[in-house]
Amino acid sequence: MYKALLMGLITLINISPVSAERLSSEPIKPIQAFIIKEPDKVELGKKLFFDPRLSRSGFISCNSCHNLSMGGSDNLPTSIGHNWQQGPINSPTVLNSSMNLAQFWDGRAANLQEQAAGPIANPMEMAFSHSLAIDVLRSIPQYVAEFNKIYGSSQITLDQVTNAIAAFEETLVTPNARFDLWLKGNDNALTETEIAGYQKFKEIGCVACHNGEAVGGSSFQRMGVIEPYQTENPAEGRIAVTGKDADRFSFKVPTLRNVELTYPYFHDGAYWKLEDAVDVMARLQLGQQLASQDIKNITAFLKTLTGDQPQFAIPQLPPSTANTPIPVPFEQ
Amino acid sequence: MYKALLMGLITLINISPVSAERLSSEPIKPIQAFIIKEPDKVELGKKLFFDPRLSRSGFISCNSCHNLSMGGSDNLPTSIGHNWQQGPINSPTVLNSSMNLAQFWDGRAANLQEQAAGPIANPMEMAFSHSLAIDVLRSIPQYVAEFNKIYGSSQITLDQVTNAIAAFEETLVTPNARFDLWLKGNDNALTETEIAGYQKFKEIGCVACHNGEAVGGSSFQRMGVIEPYQTENPAEGRIAVTGKDADRFSFKVPTLRNVELTYPYFHDGAYWKLEDAVDVMARLQLGQQLASQDIKNITAFLKTLTGDQPQFAIPQLPPSTANTPIPVPFEQ
Repeated sequence: MYKALLMGLITLINISPVSAERLSSEPIKPIQAFIIKEPDKVELGKKLFFDPRLSRSGFISCNSCHNLSMGGSDNLPTSIGHNWQQGPINSPTVLNSSMNLAQFWDGRAANLQEQAAGPIANPMEMAFSHSLAIDVLRSIPQYVAEFNKIYGSSQITLDQVTNAIAAFEETLVTPNARFDLWLKGNDNALTETEIAGYQKFKEIGCVACHNGEAVGGSSFQRMGVIEPYQTENPAEGRIAVTGKDADRFSFKVPTLRNVELTYPYFHDGAYWKLEDAVDVMARLQLGQQLASQDIKNITAFLKTLTGDQPQFAIPQLPPSTANTPIPVPFEQ
Repeated sequence: MYKALLMGLITLINISPVSAERLSSEPIKPIQAFIIKEPDKVELGKKLFFDPRLSRSGFISCNSCHNLSMGGSDNLPTSIGHNWQQGPINSPTVLNSSMNLAQFWDGRAANLQEQAAGPIANPMEMAFSHSLAIDVLRSIPQYVAEFNKIYGSSQITLDQVTNAIAAFEETLVTPNARFDLWLKGNDNALTETEIAGYQKFKEIGCVACHNGEAVGGSSFQRMGVIEPYQTENPAEGRIAVTGKDADRFSFKVPTLRNVELTYPYFHDGAYWKLEDAVDVMARLQLGQQLASQDIKNITAFLKTLTGDQPQFAIPQLPPSTANTPIPVPFEQ
């Protein structure tokens, strides 16, 4: 009883020797809470993230495919775009995406700001144009005032729009996952099954790619190293950016943070069950045929990577005016 | 100075004689803040309201067309449904909808609970079936636990689902509009223009239908009393429910609360500018050709009906499981 109390105190004041060792030696690092330094910009970015007027139809916002009620994803194999077009690839989670070495599965955007411009003008997604999106924002006095306050100009530019969206997205980190509490020395944060899963995860080599704060996102890797990945999805990955044949079927390693929430899995969204995704990865990437108990254990471990989800009040969007271009949900 | 202070105090302690008279004599009544008595049920209803897994595609939620970031509406002439189908009628705001005498434009649902079941199974909207929606919820342990806690049964029924959604929707009232502050005796809450607009609004007879707390929603009225309303929308209104020829083109009078946010206007969503809607209503319903200054004043008054918008943290939806039916965004 006294010992438990003492251990609790030690955990509380964060000086556990276990903690220090785990933090330095484990290949996965805990996520730090994000400290907002530019609250006005983050608030503006939040509004833009939720504003469907950045799409041609007036119906699709960033949040449609990166739904912050659903792990920052849409939980569909590939997304629904303008006019119900079927998207080419699985929508990656926006959660912790600031930790990625680049954005999109093929890494064609260097950072979140560059990424944010893409879907607005993509005819398969929001199907708008940057200049029309800017026209919409410029017609709304509350937006003009907010941009003016933050960027010191009553003009609104695409760079400002994507800068604000990126500033909001940077706040979308998910600290305090049970695994992180364990990393910080709280032995009770994980069950034996979960720890066994983590040991197996390290033992067979998953950590070669899934490591660091985001447990992924830090490299491009070929999908199907030992065995080819069978898919009807025509995406070829990184070669689209580099033009190098060696990069064919190479994709950004997805984060495993909140993986419990970001089904279905892989760039084609073909696998709905985390157990199946674990099995496929072990076989194709590592040449390991896992026993079903190991799959269960690894899956249990992966579910400990679910952290605190973003908590904020739903934004209230400033209304359109008589000068606001009217959305075009249906073509005539 | 002392007088201003005294008046301020009187306003504060709410005993202004002006206030008492206005509250009793004006045809519009202030909205009361909603006091939540069943917080667990409201939280569950909020999740369901935001959960796109109640649709066949896994993409459309109640919030898609009754967007709580946009005045509880979608700001489109008619809504986008499953497979991008064009809806038949303008999506009415969910804000203050508990005050309506019935739900839908034709009043075919007696109350919010009855309404909530409609879109889930409507092939033009969420295109699901009630039993499939229930199957989804039953497959998710966190939902089962919440229903069990609230309804005392681990079964989940459609009645429970719609009861919880309605309980959430009942909280979506918008008190503290500037007009309400004025009704309560705060003379400074409105400008002279706004008061002039309100006087004209009463003088020409708008209050015959737009009265009470919701400034509408309490009767069905023919659209086009003096002159017929020109529209390509085939909706015939209340006759669909009563079968009476006298009810042809009779629609529920919409609330004018937050009308600044709920464009475009009328059951066909044909008018984007509030000024135009005011002009059309005065001519068609009241035989009044308003001067442009009167239109401006009435519009200014109407914008004082925007109240506090719902403030709550975006809900976090419990994840699907291996047993959850997979959504069908695209037909094979």
